[in-house]
Amino acid sequence: MAAKSAHADMIVIDGLIISKFSRAVFEDMRAGGLTAANCTCSVWEGFEGTMRNVAAWNRMFRENADLVVPVRTTGDILAAKKAGRTGIILGFQNISAFEDQVGYVKLFKDVGVGIAQMAYNTQNLCATGCYESVDRGLSDFGHEIVAEMNRAGIMCDLSHVGSKSSEDVIKASKKPVCYSHVCPSALKKHPRNKSDEELRFIVRKGGFVGVTMFPPFLAKGNAATIDDYVAAIEHVIGICGEDQVGIGTDFTQDQDQAFFDWLTHDKGYARELVTFAPIQNPKGIRRIGEFPNLPRAMEKAGWPAGRIEKVMGRNWLAVLEEVWGA
Amino acid sequence: MAAKSAHADMIVIDGLIISKFSRAVFEDMRAGGLTAANCTCSVWEGFEGTMRNVAAWNRMFRENADLVVPVRTTGDILAAKKAGRTGIILGFQNISAFEDQVGYVKLFKDVGVGIAQMAYNTQNLCATGCYESVDRGLSDFGHEIVAEMNRAGIMCDLSHVGSKSSEDVIKASKKPVCYSHVCPSALKKHPRNKSDEELRFIVRKGGFVGVTMFPPFLAKGNAATIDDYVAAIEHVIGICGEDQVGIGTDFTQDQDQAFFDWLTHDKGYARELVTFAPIQNPKGIRRIGEFPNLPRAMEKAGWPAGRIEKVMGRNWLAVLEEVWGA
Repeated sequence: MAAKSAHADMIVIDGLIISKFSRAVFEDMRAGGLTAANCTCSVWEGFEGTMRNVAAWNRMFRENADLVVPVRTTGDILAAKKAGRTGIILGFQNISAFEDQVGYVKLFKDVGVGIAQMAYNTQNLCATGCYESVDRGLSDFGHEIVAEMNRAGIMCDLSHVGSKSSEDVIKASKKPVCYSHVCPSALKKHPRNKSDEELRFIVRKGGFVGVTMFPPFLAKGNAATIDDYVAAIEHVIGICGEDQVGIGTDFTQDQDQAFFDWLTHDKGYARELVTFAPIQNPKGIRRIGEFPNLPRAMEKAGWPAGRIEKVMGRNWLAVLEEVWGA
Repeated sequence: MAAKSAHADMIVIDGLIISKFSRAVFEDMRAGGLTAANCTCSVWEGFEGTMRNVAAWNRMFRENADLVVPVRTTGDILAAKKAGRTGIILGFQNISAFEDQVGYVKLFKDVGVGIAQMAYNTQNLCATGCYESVDRGLSDFGHEIVAEMNRAGIMCDLSHVGSKSSEDVIKASKKPVCYSHVCPSALKKHPRNKSDEELRFIVRKGGFVGVTMFPPFLAKGNAATIDDYVAAIEHVIGICGEDQVGIGTDFTQDQDQAFFDWLTHDKGYARELVTFAPIQNPKGIRRIGEFPNLPRAMEKAGWPAGRIEKVMGRNWLAVLEEVWGA
């Protein structure tokens, strides 16, 4: 199949995976032909807990070196492609790990963290999440953290961040920032989805949008198919153009209910913020290994090959190079 | 002066400095023509305290980038020489910072730590220090830590380690280990000094000896001169040959009594282990800026130029390359 070999040659980057990482998931990443993925290594943890998570990742890297490799530069991503491994970008979905120390930002950069979301659902020392009752915007300390992330080369992610805080970060950052995994609220109203105006604003400021397929954010929910996912990406491209848009699946593969409970409660245990029905990803891309179906669905939707290549990974590669250096 | 310009061209590496690091000390490093130095960033601190110390170093690196630069490879050291900066090797004098986590070893390597002493004066989870009443040797967990340090590329230092633990580490390590800053007990009996047999053993096993000038370890104490320091190095060369010996001053420049009290009590506050009279370094090399007097004193002692260059830094460079890679 032409589409299949095209996928094999393609740079494929997933802007957000929060699966239960294991050899089985890494094998599925290879089956799916993933070149690189932003893999969450911190949500509610503090400094020490997150450092231990990174240490656990280092052990996984050693034990699964035939499948995955840590990546810190876009050169590393291209090398991973060449070596037939999936490059792992360590990422945060919250910056609780920075605690109250600006100096921790570079420490995490040095141990391999390349992307960090400024807040996860609620208020932290820097920014406000999308389920908080009032978005207070970026704090003064948050401005220091954004400046340090710019300097260290950690990309600011705003997917779970509130509207005002996102706007503040987009304006404050001297390097491109991203929504790594969002859906357009034009297709479904949801506190986690972004308006056309918000999508337009981040892109106009040089930023990036990764589109997710997490069913609660799609109009058809668990009934959605891979074609609905492609339609959501098309909507975003309609707003943002085709050069600053990519994939950010939000695969939660192999996670159990206890994990979702931890995610959906503030700080992992406090008040419940949102409830989700059991997640079933869109038909055609239920598991990471089905990734090759995605460029096929794009082709079926009539996308030209150049657009498919850009959205599947070339665009992420370009923006990461802007933030990290080559 | 021929000697002066020879010093300017020389690779000069100090295997141990534990000064009160500041812009003033960094300026003195430049005045002394230091190419690189192993600078202590942890003695009694745990994981988090040491990570904060590294963060403080990162800030010092930024604020004094005209004088110093962090080095992680011997290539970095040569680049520092070329750029007219002093390369800083971050080092531990104790591995309390690894706590009970083997995975912390690589985290510290990744944030810039290149050398770590297996114990400081007393017993820790891995090894026994030189002032402990009984040296229990390397623990089973200590064997895991040595293996991980080998893998990560952090050099094992044994200066303050007891005789039995040192022997165990020398035998266990698959990469060269060092006494970074010791004196020969043949010239003065002291729990911190090493016997000819111990010096011979580490070198026979591919290891390295950096010779200190810390006055309590020299026969003449505070009355010692730079020539006495050269004589101590000569004694070590007599035992070890001239290829595996270097400098390890133990400069405590600008430190106050409170700091010495912290060093000389177990864990920084518990029982007192040793007392030192106020330290006055050997005449001729009282301060880091006087480093150029050292090759002059070696020349005066009749050393050939090749030996001077090796002991002043070339030997350290070679052994660090064995441990770190180029």
